[in-house]
Amino acid sequence: MSTDPFLDRLQRARTAARSLATVTTAQKNAALAAIADAIEASVPQVVEANAEDLRRGRESGMAEGLLDRLLLDEKRLQGLAAAVREVIALPDPVGQIVRGSTLANGIQISQVRVPFGVVGAIYEARPNVTVDIAALALKSGNGAVLRGGTAAESSNRVLVEVIQRAISSVGLQGDAVQTVDEFGREGATRLMRARGYVDVLIPRGSAGLISTVVNESTVPVIETGAGIVHVFVDASADEEKAAAIVRNAKTHRPSVCNAAETLLVHRDAAERLLPRLARELQEASVVLHGDEGARSLVPGLGAASEEVWETEHLALEMGVRIVDSLDEAIAHIDRYSTHHTESIVTEDYESAQRFLAEVDSAVVMVNASTRFTDGGEFGFGAEVGISTQKLHARGPMGLQELTSTKWLVRGNGQIR
Amino acid sequence: MSTDPFLDRLQRARTAARSLATVTTAQKNAALAAIADAIEASVPQVVEANAEDLRRGRESGMAEGLLDRLLLDEKRLQGLAAAVREVIALPDPVGQIVRGSTLANGIQISQVRVPFGVVGAIYEARPNVTVDIAALALKSGNGAVLRGGTAAESSNRVLVEVIQRAISSVGLQGDAVQTVDEFGREGATRLMRARGYVDVLIPRGSAGLISTVVNESTVPVIETGAGIVHVFVDASADEEKAAAIVRNAKTHRPSVCNAAETLLVHRDAAERLLPRLARELQEASVVLHGDEGARSLVPGLGAASEEVWETEHLALEMGVRIVDSLDEAIAHIDRYSTHHTESIVTEDYESAQRFLAEVDSAVVMVNASTRFTDGGEFGFGAEVGISTQKLHARGPMGLQELTSTKWLVRGNGQIR
Repeated sequence: MSTDPFLDRLQRARTAARSLATVTTAQKNAALAAIADAIEASVPQVVEANAEDLRRGRESGMAEGLLDRLLLDEKRLQGLAAAVREVIALPDPVGQIVRGSTLANGIQISQVRVPFGVVGAIYEARPNVTVDIAALALKSGNGAVLRGGTAAESSNRVLVEVIQRAISSVGLQGDAVQTVDEFGREGATRLMRARGYVDVLIPRGSAGLISTVVNESTVPVIETGAGIVHVFVDASADEEKAAAIVRNAKTHRPSVCNAAETLLVHRDAAERLLPRLARELQEASVVLHGDEGARSLVPGLGAASEEVWETEHLALEMGVRIVDSLDEAIAHIDRYSTHHTESIVTEDYESAQRFLAEVDSAVVMVNASTRFTDGGEFGFGAEVGISTQKLHARGPMGLQELTSTKWLVRGNGQIR
Repeated sequence: MSTDPFLDRLQRARTAARSLATVTTAQKNAALAAIADAIEASVPQVVEANAEDLRRGRESGMAEGLLDRLLLDEKRLQGLAAAVREVIALPDPVGQIVRGSTLANGIQISQVRVPFGVVGAIYEARPNVTVDIAALALKSGNGAVLRGGTAAESSNRVLVEVIQRAISSVGLQGDAVQTVDEFGREGATRLMRARGYVDVLIPRGSAGLISTVVNESTVPVIETGAGIVHVFVDASADEEKAAAIVRNAKTHRPSVCNAAETLLVHRDAAERLLPRLARELQEASVVLHGDEGARSLVPGLGAASEEVWETEHLALEMGVRIVDSLDEAIAHIDRYSTHHTESIVTEDYESAQRFLAEVDSAVVMVNASTRFTDGGEFGFGAEVGISTQKLHARGPMGLQELTSTKWLVRGNGQIR
C-alpha cells in the first residue's frame, strides 16, 4: 500500500475492484441488498452527520436550493435504499458477449463486457449521488472513488462507511468504495490526474464543474449534462400535439437538463399555432423571449437577445424564434444546441425523416416530449447521467455504459 | 468561414463532414475508388514532393529507419491505392441499428450508428497514415483533420490535395479531409484543444507523442499503441506450442506493438522447457535478460534489472522470469503490462479460464501468438490502430470504432 494517504485510498479501490470483476451476479446482488438494509438501519447516524453539513452550509451562507439538495432525512434515505434495491433487478452487463467469430485459422475470438475497473465521480453537495454511484459501480463490477465535495463531507463519510461495512458483511471487499472528500480541492485535482488508478471519471453537476473536469483531467472523462434543448414545431404540426409537447417539455420540470429551452416555429405554422403555444406557456408562468417574427404574432413579448439562444435557463424562461424552413431550424440547432435532445412536432414524413437524420444530438425525437431523455424512461433503471459527448456513451447511460470490453482469443497453437 | 486560417480549416472539415454523414454507402465507395485511381495517377507528383521531405530529413540528420518510414515510391503508393480499395469492400457501419425497443407508452426508441463528425489524427513522418486515415474516416462518414508532422509536410500536402480533388470529382465535399501540417507545433497544440471542431483525436506513433496528446488534449482521445506484451508458459504447457508461440510472438516482427517483450515461465515447467525456448530465441538473435531462476537454467544469460520488465524493447530483446504460480504470473502482468495483449500457453482448463478472466488487457489469449492482435487478423480490414484504453474502443479498432451512436425516438404526441 502507498504511504501517500490519497494514493493509498485509490490503490485500495483498485485492488478491491480487481476482485469484484470476477464475482457472480448473485454475490453483487447480495451486497446491494446489504447496502439497502444498512442505509435503513443507519438513518440516525446519517441524519446526524447530515445535520453537521447543513449547519456548516447555513453558516457559510449556502442558498436554500443547495441546502435542500444537501438534506437527507428519513424519507429520502428510504428512497435511496429503494433505489439500491431497484439496481438488484437490473441485468448484470458483465460477461455479456458482444460479438465474436472463428477465424479462418481456427482461432476463436469473442468480445466480452468487463468492468472498467475503478470509476471516479466528481459532484457537488448531493449525498444521494454517493449511494447511486456506489450501487451502480458495484453492480457493474467496478470500484468507485467518490469526490462529493466538502459541503457534504460528513454525510458522505458516514454513507461510505455504511456502504463499505455492508459490502464486507457479505464477504466482498468493502474497500471497493472510497471517498476522497477530506483531501479537499487538491483531492479533486489529483483524482482528475489519477491515470492508472481511475479508468473513467464522470462529473455530475453544474456546467462550471463539468468544464473544469473536462479541461483538467488526464483520466478519460464522460461528459454529462448541459442541455440547451430545442422543440421545433414544423409547418404541418398537429395543434394538440404541439401544445402538449411544448408545454410538457418546458414546464414539467424546468430545472433539469432535458427541459426545453428554445421553441422554433416554422413560419407557415406560426400564425396558426404560436399565439396558443405562447398563451399556454405564459399561463404556466413561462417568461418568453421572442425574435421579431414571434413578437409580431404575440403582443407584449420581450425581445430575445443573442444570449437567449445560448442559455440553459433551467427555469421558466424560453426563447421563441420563427424559422423559414426545416433547414433553418436545423442550422439554428446546429449552432446553439449542446446536442443533448431535440424534438420536431410534425405530421410530414419527409420532415420527420430529415430531422432524425440531420440533427446531430444524443437523442432526436419526433412528436414526443424532450423529457423522455432519461435512463429510467428508456428502461435502463438507475441514473448514471446523460452523456453529451460522442465517445463511448451518448445519451442516457445505464449499467452497460459503465463497462468496457475485452477480447478473448482461444487457439491451439496458432502462429503467424 | 473563420478569418483564423487554422479554424477555417477545421470549420471546412466540419461543414463537409456534416454532409458526408448522410450520403449513401455507394457514394462513399465511389469517392474511395476515385481516391485510389487518383493516387495511382499522381505517382510522379507525390514522389517529387516526397523527395523534398527526404532531402530535408537527410539534411537535418534524420535516422535511416525514420527516412525509410518517410519514403514513398511507386510501389508503396500502389500499395496505398490497394489499401483504399480494400476499404470499399468493408461493411459501412453508419446506419446500423445497435438496439431498440418500444416503451410501454408506445414510444419507439432505437440506437443507431452515426459518424463521429470530425476525426483528428496526430502522427509523425508516416505519409501512408494520411491515406489510411482519410479512407477510413470517409468510409465511416467522418471528416478528417490530419497532423502528420513537418517532416512529411510536402508529401502530406500533395496527398491531401489529391484526395480532396478525388472526393470532389464524384460530387462529395473534398473539404472533408484537411491537413494542418503547415501550422507546425502550434497547429498540433491547437488541434488538441479544438473542442467543438474535432470530436475524437487519435494519436499514432511513439510513446512520447501519445503521452503528449493524452496529457494536453481537451478533445476526447483514443489512446493507441504501447505494448509491453507477455507470454506466460504455464506448468502444463505443450512443448511444441510453447516453442512456436514464444518464437513467433518475439521474432516475427519485433518492432510492432503486439510483439512479446517478456516471457514468464511457471517454475514447474522451467527445467523442462526453458532451455529449449532460450536456445531457440538466442538462435534467432534475441538478447535475453533473465531473473535468477532463469539464469540458473540457462548458462550465460544476462541479468534482468527492474527496468527490463518496464521496457517496450521493440527489438530482438526479451526479459525472462520464472514464476511460482499462475497468481504470480498474473500479478507480474498486472504490475508491468500496458494491457495490450497477453497470452498463456497451457493444457490446463482451469488455468486457461482463470487467465482469460483475471488478466485485464485489451486482448487475452490462450495458446496463440500475440501477433494476432491486429485489425486485419480479426477481420476488421484496414488499420485504425489498437486501443489500449478502456473507454469507447479496446483492442483492434475497425470502422465501427470510428462511429458514435444516437438515439432516435418516434412518438405520436406522448408527454410525461
